[in-house]
Amino acid sequence: MPSWTHLVRFIAVEDSQEHLGQVVDTTRDIGLDSAEGKEIAVYLIDGTIFDGKVTKEVLHVKQLLSPVSRDQCNYIRCLGLNYTDHAEEASMPIPKVPILFTKPRTALTGPYPAAINIPKCAQDDTSDYEAELCVVIGRTGKNISEEDALDYVLGYTASNDVSARTLQMLTAQWSFSKGLDGSCPIGPVLVAPSVIDDPQTLGIKAIHNGTTVQDGHTSNMIFNIRKQISYLSQGTTLEAGTIFLTGTPAGIGYFRQPRVVLRDGDEISVKIDHIGTLVNKVRYENL
Amino acid sequence: MPSWTHLVRFIAVEDSQEHLGQVVDTTRDIGLDSAEGKEIAVYLIDGTIFDGKVTKEVLHVKQLLSPVSRDQCNYIRCLGLNYTDHAEEASMPIPKVPILFTKPRTALTGPYPAAINIPKCAQDDTSDYEAELCVVIGRTGKNISEEDALDYVLGYTASNDVSARTLQMLTAQWSFSKGLDGSCPIGPVLVAPSVIDDPQTLGIKAIHNGTTVQDGHTSNMIFNIRKQISYLSQGTTLEAGTIFLTGTPAGIGYFRQPRVVLRDGDEISVKIDHIGTLVNKVRYENL
Repeated sequence: MPSWTHLVRFIAVEDSQEHLGQVVDTTRDIGLDSAEGKEIAVYLIDGTIFDGKVTKEVLHVKQLLSPVSRDQCNYIRCLGLNYTDHAEEASMPIPKVPILFTKPRTALTGPYPAAINIPKCAQDDTSDYEAELCVVIGRTGKNISEEDALDYVLGYTASNDVSARTLQMLTAQWSFSKGLDGSCPIGPVLVAPSVIDDPQTLGIKAIHNGTTVQDGHTSNMIFNIRKQISYLSQGTTLEAGTIFLTGTPAGIGYFRQPRVVLRDGDEISVKIDHIGTLVNKVRYENL
Repeated sequence: MPSWTHLVRFIAVEDSQEHLGQVVDTTRDIGLDSAEGKEIAVYLIDGTIFDGKVTKEVLHVKQLLSPVSRDQCNYIRCLGLNYTDHAEEASMPIPKVPILFTKPRTALTGPYPAAINIPKCAQDDTSDYEAELCVVIGRTGKNISEEDALDYVLGYTASNDVSARTLQMLTAQWSFSKGLDGSCPIGPVLVAPSVIDDPQTLGIKAIHNGTTVQDGHTSNMIFNIRKQISYLSQGTTLEAGTIFLTGTPAGIGYFRQPRVVLRDGDEISVKIDHIGTLVNKVRYENL
């Protein structure tokens, strides 16, 4: 069992190397602090995200990274239409089973200063945000019961299911339009289940250039975290390091009047109770 | 550049260890030979699938494995509705862009004696085969042009996109119902592009308990291999080791009259010109 409660992966001021750390002052929103250039102190963690032990050595954050690295994450499972209020705004019926699409690990990126990358093929003013609670699986399992499901959770963090809407509307399958490089920022803090006893009690917001554009609550999930893990593990091995993006509440840019889109230089944040804020700038790729 | 033309991954008679090998007699269909218990000689390959050199040391096959291992493959990209004759039998319009869904690496399995595993959640007489040409990407790339696309191909093999139809029809997204453990057998021989100059010239069949149930041709692909690689690499890094399942021709069990399904103990084979035959038995998981 790991001993951390608020884990970050980061590059340290002291040695410019990558480390895992435990946030010292867990009352602060270090995603916001980092974006504002404030100093963040962490205790060095010895080991991996799966078994790391918190030491007494203090380091300082030069740059925050995604708490799970690409090497540790082989597969990103995403839920579509999983909030009642979002299904309503999309005029879609409530799904009978979890709707699964996926992103490759090449989509994974971190919090500010890592940017949400919009490639040429999506630079048509239809790139969109989706604030989501992100769940990281801590141990490998299969045919998991709803009762046992939360025992497989390593931690919770914030994520943004960045979506290229024009590409999405060209085909009924979503894994290409939602899987572009940099379309899956997560972080910065991975919060242990010992801190978040019930993941269905969290307010979740998206904030676009300072304006709140999504203001939802995880109690409105159609399939809660237990159901997602249980259903998607039937006949299917969920490997440790698997990331779940668990659906987005109402308020996505595509359905707003007037529409809101992600443009070069925009700031988009995902803020979740007891987790903090994932801040990203949007960057149009110039290739 | 690797020097092999017909690569297999296998466990050797001589030392019961896993190796890579070059088939000695490339005129034989070693997938069939192996299922019939015939002796297969291979030259040992030194190195990986990406850079392996053929040596003069001869070994013999105790068991064939998937030519790409789970550790080497991070993501399996699959094309839906990519043959004109299959789109017709499904009464679906010809897609405007490649339809992408995915399988996790936990779906990957090898040729006989590895079984196609049907878990409890799919033991309802609706498990189905889909014979597909499988393409393995040999080097990492992004924004690849159609002209350059085949330069990224490491090799071609046979694959079966095993599908749980009841689960598939419950939701518009296909990545769960087609991603169960063991739902992606590939192999046995990975054939180099130096042997298959044009992947659009291959006959492809599925054979169920000795009866030919699919009899198609890769010239009927809606998006050929060049287009698939080019489109799906736009804004998206394709990592070396990525596997493409490139769509299935007409004749899937679900649309046959009477329906054909995969039941415990059935034999299902995928046979492709210049590649050979992928043979699997079906096994109902007893959990």
